[in-house]
Amino acid sequence: MLVVMQPAATAADIERVCEEITRQGFKPLPMPGEVRTAIGLLGDDSKADWSYIEALPGVASVLIVQKPYRQASREWKPETTIVEIAPGVRFGGPEIAIVAGPCSVESEEQIVTSARAVRAAGATALRGGAFKPRSSPYAFQGLGKQGLELLALARRETGLAIVTEAMDEHGADLVAEYADCIQIGARNMQNYSLLRHVGRLGKPVMLKRGMAATINDLLLSAEYILAEGNPNVILCERGVRTFDSATRNLFDLTAIPVVQKLSHLPIVADPSHGTGLRDKVTPMARAAVAAGADGVLVEVHPQPDKALSDGAQSLYPEQFAQLVQQLRPIAEAIGRSLAPTPGTAPVDVR
Amino acid sequence: MLVVMQPAATAADIERVCEEITRQGFKPLPMPGEVRTAIGLLGDDSKADWSYIEALPGVASVLIVQKPYRQASREWKPETTIVEIAPGVRFGGPEIAIVAGPCSVESEEQIVTSARAVRAAGATALRGGAFKPRSSPYAFQGLGKQGLELLALARRETGLAIVTEAMDEHGADLVAEYADCIQIGARNMQNYSLLRHVGRLGKPVMLKRGMAATINDLLLSAEYILAEGNPNVILCERGVRTFDSATRNLFDLTAIPVVQKLSHLPIVADPSHGTGLRDKVTPMARAAVAAGADGVLVEVHPQPDKALSDGAQSLYPEQFAQLVQQLRPIAEAIGRSLAPTPGTAPVDVR
Amino acid sequence: MLVVMQPAATAADIERVCEEITRQGFKPLPMPGEVRTAIGLLGDDSKADWSYIEALPGVASVLIVQKPYRQASREWKPETTIVEIAPGVRFGGPEIAIVAGPCSVESEEQIVTSARAVRAAGATALRGGAFKPRSSPYAFQGLGKQGLELLALARRETGLAIVTEAMDEHGADLVAEYADCIQIGARNMQNYSLLRHVGRLGKPVMLKRGMAATINDLLLSAEYILAEGNPNVILCERGVRTFDSATRNLFDLTAIPVVQKLSHLPIVADPSHGTGLRDKVTPMARAAVAAGADGVLVEVHPQPDKALSDGAQSLYPEQFAQLVQQLRPIAEAIGRSLAPTPGTAPVDVR
Amino acid sequence: MLVVMQPAATAADIERVCEEITRQGFKPLPMPGEVRTAIGLLGDDSKADWSYIEALPGVASVLIVQKPYRQASREWKPETTIVEIAPGVRFGGPEIAIVAGPCSVESEEQIVTSARAVRAAGATALRGGAFKPRSSPYAFQGLGKQGLELLALARRETGLAIVTEAMDEHGADLVAEYADCIQIGARNMQNYSLLRHVGRLGKPVMLKRGMAATINDLLLSAEYILAEGNPNVILCERGVRTFDSATRNLFDLTAIPVVQKLSHLPIVADPSHGTGLRDKVTPMARAAVAAGADGVLVEVHPQPDKALSDGAQSLYPEQFAQLVQQLRPIAEAIGRSLAPTPGTAPVDVR
Repeated sequence: MLVVMQPAATAADIERVCEEITRQGFKPLPMPGEVRTAIGLLGDDSKADWSYIEALPGVASVLIVQKPYRQASREWKPETTIVEIAPGVRFGGPEIAIVAGPCSVESEEQIVTSARAVRAAGATALRGGAFKPRSSPYAFQGLGKQGLELLALARRETGLAIVTEAMDEHGADLVAEYADCIQIGARNMQNYSLLRHVGRLGKPVMLKRGMAATINDLLLSAEYILAEGNPNVILCERGVRTFDSATRNLFDLTAIPVVQKLSHLPIVADPSHGTGLRDKVTPMARAAVAAGADGVLVEVHPQPDKALSDGAQSLYPEQFAQLVQQLRPIAEAIGRSLAPTPGTAPVDVR
Repeated sequence: MLVVMQPAATAADIERVCEEITRQGFKPLPMPGEVRTAIGLLGDDSKADWSYIEALPGVASVLIVQKPYRQASREWKPETTIVEIAPGVRFGGPEIAIVAGPCSVESEEQIVTSARAVRAAGATALRGGAFKPRSSPYAFQGLGKQGLELLALARRETGLAIVTEAMDEHGADLVAEYADCIQIGARNMQNYSLLRHVGRLGKPVMLKRGMAATINDLLLSAEYILAEGNPNVILCERGVRTFDSATRNLFDLTAIPVVQKLSHLPIVADPSHGTGLRDKVTPMARAAVAAGADGVLVEVHPQPDKALSDGAQSLYPEQFAQLVQQLRPIAEAIGRSLAPTPGTAPVDVR
Repeated sequence: MLVVMQPAATAADIERVCEEITRQGFKPLPMPGEVRTAIGLLGDDSKADWSYIEALPGVASVLIVQKPYRQASREWKPETTIVEIAPGVRFGGPEIAIVAGPCSVESEEQIVTSARAVRAAGATALRGGAFKPRSSPYAFQGLGKQGLELLALARRETGLAIVTEAMDEHGADLVAEYADCIQIGARNMQNYSLLRHVGRLGKPVMLKRGMAATINDLLLSAEYILAEGNPNVILCERGVRTFDSATRNLFDLTAIPVVQKLSHLPIVADPSHGTGLRDKVTPMARAAVAAGADGVLVEVHPQPDKALSDGAQSLYPEQFAQLVQQLRPIAEAIGRSLAPTPGTAPVDVR
Repeated sequence: MLVVMQPAATAADIERVCEEITRQGFKPLPMPGEVRTAIGLLGDDSKADWSYIEALPGVASVLIVQKPYRQASREWKPETTIVEIAPGVRFGGPEIAIVAGPCSVESEEQIVTSARAVRAAGATALRGGAFKPRSSPYAFQGLGKQGLELLALARRETGLAIVTEAMDEHGADLVAEYADCIQIGARNMQNYSLLRHVGRLGKPVMLKRGMAATINDLLLSAEYILAEGNPNVILCERGVRTFDSATRNLFDLTAIPVVQKLSHLPIVADPSHGTGLRDKVTPMARAAVAAGADGVLVEVHPQPDKALSDGAQSLYPEQFAQLVQQLRPIAEAIGRSLAPTPGTAPVDVR
């Protein structure tokens, strides 16, 4: 913490800031300069809310040293957290997990066909929405509980772990019952009531970055979950809003090494939402692995032309299989490998 | 709707797009050009989800004519909606409503003192948070139900209508019981479960624009509330995320005339969150009224230095009184006026 | 300047940073904290390039106290600079100057008609492009030197001062010869060779904010001109790039009070480019004056439907006249007034 | 081109738009819908400036079909352009070119040491600034012509081709004399006078994307160079401005496949400026190659702690050598390879 005074600040202004710092239980350290004075503070400045020091007379700005999140920080826990969402399905270790499947669960045939196809190609887990956050209230909103039952069926058929989104507390309870990992979508990244709720459920959570969220915001949202005692948080980069309409979002792959330096939590990337365009998914999934992602989420649909949502960004099963073939040597080039597909015998992992 | 084909598209590609349009119940109208063919569509194209046409072979892009929202559109309802949140407290008519008060409700003395001060200066309604969405889980989160009781007390003391935020369904039920208008904050603008819930409660809703929300997104979120049968929606511009850290947000005042052209819903502006800096609130509140806002939200605290949240952006009561004096002639310059303060006799409007 | 060390930094790391600070001629002041050490620095830290301290082992981050610009700062010159571009045509004093005219100079009739119309309505200066920066090389690029001659003719006819853009050094020499103020457009805001050149010409300069420029960037670009000995710089807010395509740019009116606090230079606003839409120009010009702008730039064309560039954002002369009538009481509401039109007798101010 | 009329547009409004389309030499095709009429246009709509149709009464919006650039488009030239800047040093073919070197040329020893180190590690060309665009006028601005002479010396010593920036027309003439490829920096991407000038010089140009430039803007700027008859343009992604200060810029790797679909021009990526942080350069250079970049630019300095500019983002020579080792298998995973280092015998390629 450093309080920078204005050049015109008086001795009384400086004194008042020092008194306030002392009142808060810290030790002020004035540093007179040629042009102005700065006042340092000794102690752990993350413990206080400093906005009112900024508003004292003569203060030019306050520079914060400590990060506002704690348990999410790599300073809190130096070794990378490995989140295991089902037996053998891990995020954060040397193996890279591939989560694939359709945008929405549409029918038994569609989800089982999808699950078999992505498993055959090399996926580790199955994604598919039962509750869909759609920007229009008139668009298809998902099959709800029936969708969760179909996902559980697909898991029995293939052994794939299930990752699926919850949009509210009631939905989170249901997802926790049927699936292996609760996804919190970008639009709910700062829905703090929901974050607290999934923190208390204890189930692994995949937290997607919001459309205008900084890395700092993302880690603070993770902190809401961790603070409730749930350590199993996987972060997900899926693109942020920007000025160019050439792609749906601006896929921020640098977020991967940035998060890995600041936090011990694993981070995956979602090139399907990150780009919104089928022919960009393959190059950007490769780039995500090359950048060090702990996993990738890819939308795959047996018949993208007929999909009820996001068909334009879903890969055909053959395209997905080719992608996985390209990802293997890239993983190896950086000393990692793709996670193996769960055992071939159908298994009910619940 | 116009489907633009690639220059290299074949006759078969064009035929397939025409068939698909026909299958959807519309009439295709091919328009061959020098370089490429475009295919028009006759009918109401808002009824379909066209993403899979984009993915057909030979299609370059799809241009959408219809807006994705309906009831929020001025084409649906040409005259401006007037939302009355309490007897005589209206948004959307010729009078401009001023909503003022502290960021958080902190104590009986603080909220009653604030309410009296802002009422004396010319406010129409009282704002103050009982449930606070804070980016850090360790920051002050509001007094909850007790805060709502204190707001109701301040209303009895001053006659001011109450606007306060809800963060989840349970909180919305409580806010509906105690206050006059439920505020949905920027972080929950796309929390569709909550939007549906407040749509069903029927109470007036003030919907704040999300940090990365386009005007289109904002109107789609309003549509979620309207679609549940609640017509009383007030929109609020409060700044969007951008690249310059000189202010907390980029306050987008052009959103006011843009919304007023596209929608019949009233729109207010919040220069306190829009700028995040006390000395910018006064000029930007003036600018909001000059731009045509139907109301302004201003944070005012009796002792900003001691505020538990957002002290650095709260006005002192004297500053707020001066601001209101400046707003009067600006309102008159554009043919409007400030809404009168509710009757001096204490009134319980519940 | 505050160097924040990582929690794991060793005593040797801290020692090395202190040595480097000493080597640079400053005095280091280590501040051990509970979690980590920070190292303050006594002296004027604007004199050094600190990027390599950031890269030393054990350094977490470097917080900069001093602003990187000097002569543009209000700390350098507390009183607001008044820039007089022609006798009586001033920016930065109590009077608000209105600069109006077409996007491009197209013909003698067009520019003289425009000049007479905007003068009659209350403009102080005439704008109009002779050199046009167009994003397409195939679009109309302006009349060049002939356009400058027509602007000089319009000045003789009306007495209005002339503001017009230069795109390169040769063009700047010509503009300096014919006009009263050289405009540097948004696309050239960081064309440092051109900034230096117009700094040396000595003529008043209107410097437009770039599409992705922070306020800090804008003031640094002004510093390039000031550093060459030219104190006559007028800044101009004209909108920045953002994610919403509802308007051409995001018009950042908060930049006005932000600049006025940080710098002594006058600042004007351009709602025509800031919004790109004719029906948004009037409300946003009013908002600019209410926010405290020292002037406004407005595109006005006698026949917007026939304009060779930017017709969709140009006001009709009647609309402009109505706008000026609305601006007068708004200026008065904040203790200012509109600048008077130059003397009625035709004057050649050159 | 599709002109979308407002629902309230009259038959006369529609007639007027049709007349205007006819007057422009095209054929109008009205398409009445349930809610509103749209008017299609047959012909090559890239030939006209349609802004005034947007401003006609009753028009809601105009949707443009044709792209505004021509020669830069892959529709104009389907096969990818290969730009050869020196014998054997090519961009756009199956081989990926690595351009490396310090931010600025500082001395003979520094540049020759750098050149030898990057050549030994596998670079194809040498980068290094003689003219530096610095945001502060008081920062080191480069050695100018002397810097170019040192680059030419380094070429004689190592055989590496030279890529270096020009900031104005005079500088471009000098760079064309001494180097193999003229770099146009992000700040000058829309300096159209300079683009025209380098278009006429005929020398290969590396055009960096501006900080707020869309892909469309980038291709239009390339069009300025192509339109002067110079086909040798290499595009460069180097990050755009965004709201998160975690990195210097937001490195937009999706731009690579987006550009490769829209244009035949080669595109390279600059992870050093794209991230601004040394430890992010290696993962993002790998990601760029995995995304399909035709080359990468990497800042390497023999002693980053002592660099006069951008030391914090420069790799140590050993780090660069390790990076190149990681890039080889990634290139092979997607069917490409790294370009070989120019012949070991010192060669003067001029």
